[in-house]
Amino acid sequence: MGRIETVGIVGLGLMGTSIALAIRQRRAADRIFAMDRDHSAVEAAKARGAFDKGSTSYDTLKGADLVVVAVPPRAVPEAVVSAAAMLSPGGVLTDVASIKTEIVRAVEQRLPRMIRYVGGHPMAGSERQGAQAADPDLLAGRPFIVTPTAVSDDESVEMVSAFARGIGMRPVILTPEDHDDLVAQVSHLSYLLAVAAVTAASDQALELQGPGFAGLARLAASPLELWTQICSANRDAIRRALARLRGQLDQIEDALGREDALREILAQAQRRTKGGD
Amino acid sequence: MGRIETVGIVGLGLMGTSIALAIRQRRAADRIFAMDRDHSAVEAAKARGAFDKGSTSYDTLKGADLVVVAVPPRAVPEAVVSAAAMLSPGGVLTDVASIKTEIVRAVEQRLPRMIRYVGGHPMAGSERQGAQAADPDLLAGRPFIVTPTAVSDDESVEMVSAFARGIGMRPVILTPEDHDDLVAQVSHLSYLLAVAAVTAASDQALELQGPGFAGLARLAASPLELWTQICSANRDAIRRALARLRGQLDQIEDALGREDALREILAQAQRRTKGGD
Repeated sequence: MGRIETVGIVGLGLMGTSIALAIRQRRAADRIFAMDRDHSAVEAAKARGAFDKGSTSYDTLKGADLVVVAVPPRAVPEAVVSAAAMLSPGGVLTDVASIKTEIVRAVEQRLPRMIRYVGGHPMAGSERQGAQAADPDLLAGRPFIVTPTAVSDDESVEMVSAFARGIGMRPVILTPEDHDDLVAQVSHLSYLLAVAAVTAASDQALELQGPGFAGLARLAASPLELWTQICSANRDAIRRALARLRGQLDQIEDALGREDALREILAQAQRRTKGGD
Repeated sequence: MGRIETVGIVGLGLMGTSIALAIRQRRAADRIFAMDRDHSAVEAAKARGAFDKGSTSYDTLKGADLVVVAVPPRAVPEAVVSAAAMLSPGGVLTDVASIKTEIVRAVEQRLPRMIRYVGGHPMAGSERQGAQAADPDLLAGRPFIVTPTAVSDDESVEMVSAFARGIGMRPVILTPEDHDDLVAQVSHLSYLLAVAAVTAASDQALELQGPGFAGLARLAASPLELWTQICSANRDAIRRALARLRGQLDQIEDALGREDALREILAQAQRRTKGGD
């Protein structure tokens, strides 16, 4: 497979702009065509030098070999369909939404069968938003999950994987369902635990917070609309992850009065954290 | 009140050595006398330049104006009593344990009434251990909780508070009971949430963890024996904090199917995180 000449980017927020800057930094493509419906987002990304050609119109993407759709989850299907019309022959589309089952299904229902699309999720981010906060280092070394289905072709999967490597990420192939289950356990659960802990703590307790709690609390400051969409769309997997977590909290609470049992639970978590279990 | 001439430190682990280095850095006292029962800890702290005189014997502390006992929670009462015999006339003892009710009560029961002791808790730390990992910057700007009781005298409270300011920390006066309740909500709860989340996540999910989860998981790597003691001793306050957290998780789970309700919960946490609520 040849080098990707032109990457198109839809959505110039934190993730779209970070990907653009990573393409530049690592010379992962020759040209970047980018669009965002919001003129100020285009201007902010332009100020970061994030594209060769940019506008508020999908027309700008004309001739792209790979289009990356980096808009909020609910807007992905519509944006993929709009961008598909601009794709060069043999081109491929992907997206960056952190939920996949619902989105991949919606996209595949709406796209003509001849158009090639594979879901993606670069597992990176920040509690900040917008092109101003974009940073290619957010992506470096992180997993880029690629989620093919029965209708995906191998060449598209390989093209998205090669692109992920090109921007310094580590491609991981998962089904959309496995993706949603796994990210519920790590990404979505840690956000919701942060929300619960911050809400449950008294004002006075929040004032005393140490670096451990502050790291947790920072997650609760994440973009509101994005996370409302993520948690709503992935609620089934989140419920399963919450059930497992409650089971662990029950065991911990039960062990609080029995020191040997408590030590064993804490030791198991410590080993898992250090990769020794 | 005059300048503190000699500070004695019992226990040259991460916290004792960090305090010693902060005294040096900020010239908060003229001399540091330090002891640890473990010869290798004394050597490691010596290599960091943490004291003027150090040994494995309490005799080393003779003549100290303020003694800071920085040993694991359960060892505090015994260490305070041993160090009390070395205190200069008018001297004061404090400790750094992150639980207070049980410890302050035990110390006050065992110390002669003429000996002045006020419980302390510098709210700082790291998942690392030992003098090698000591760092005075861990303390800078953080709360140093001082926990007087009915038998404490104002001068001792002021001396410990002045010392806290001297090493760059922010003294906060609380009863031992309020202290335990508040730190359960922020410090102890975030540790136990990390333990539960790490234990509940599958191996494959752990491999995909992003920076948010990694920050949480790092807490689960904290020193095992220390945290077993903390969680056992503060189990009543931890149970209360866990009950509040479960209530919040119930509300979140209930709202997962109703987007407006979910957005409102997430927004409230975001406002609290940003200090706007």
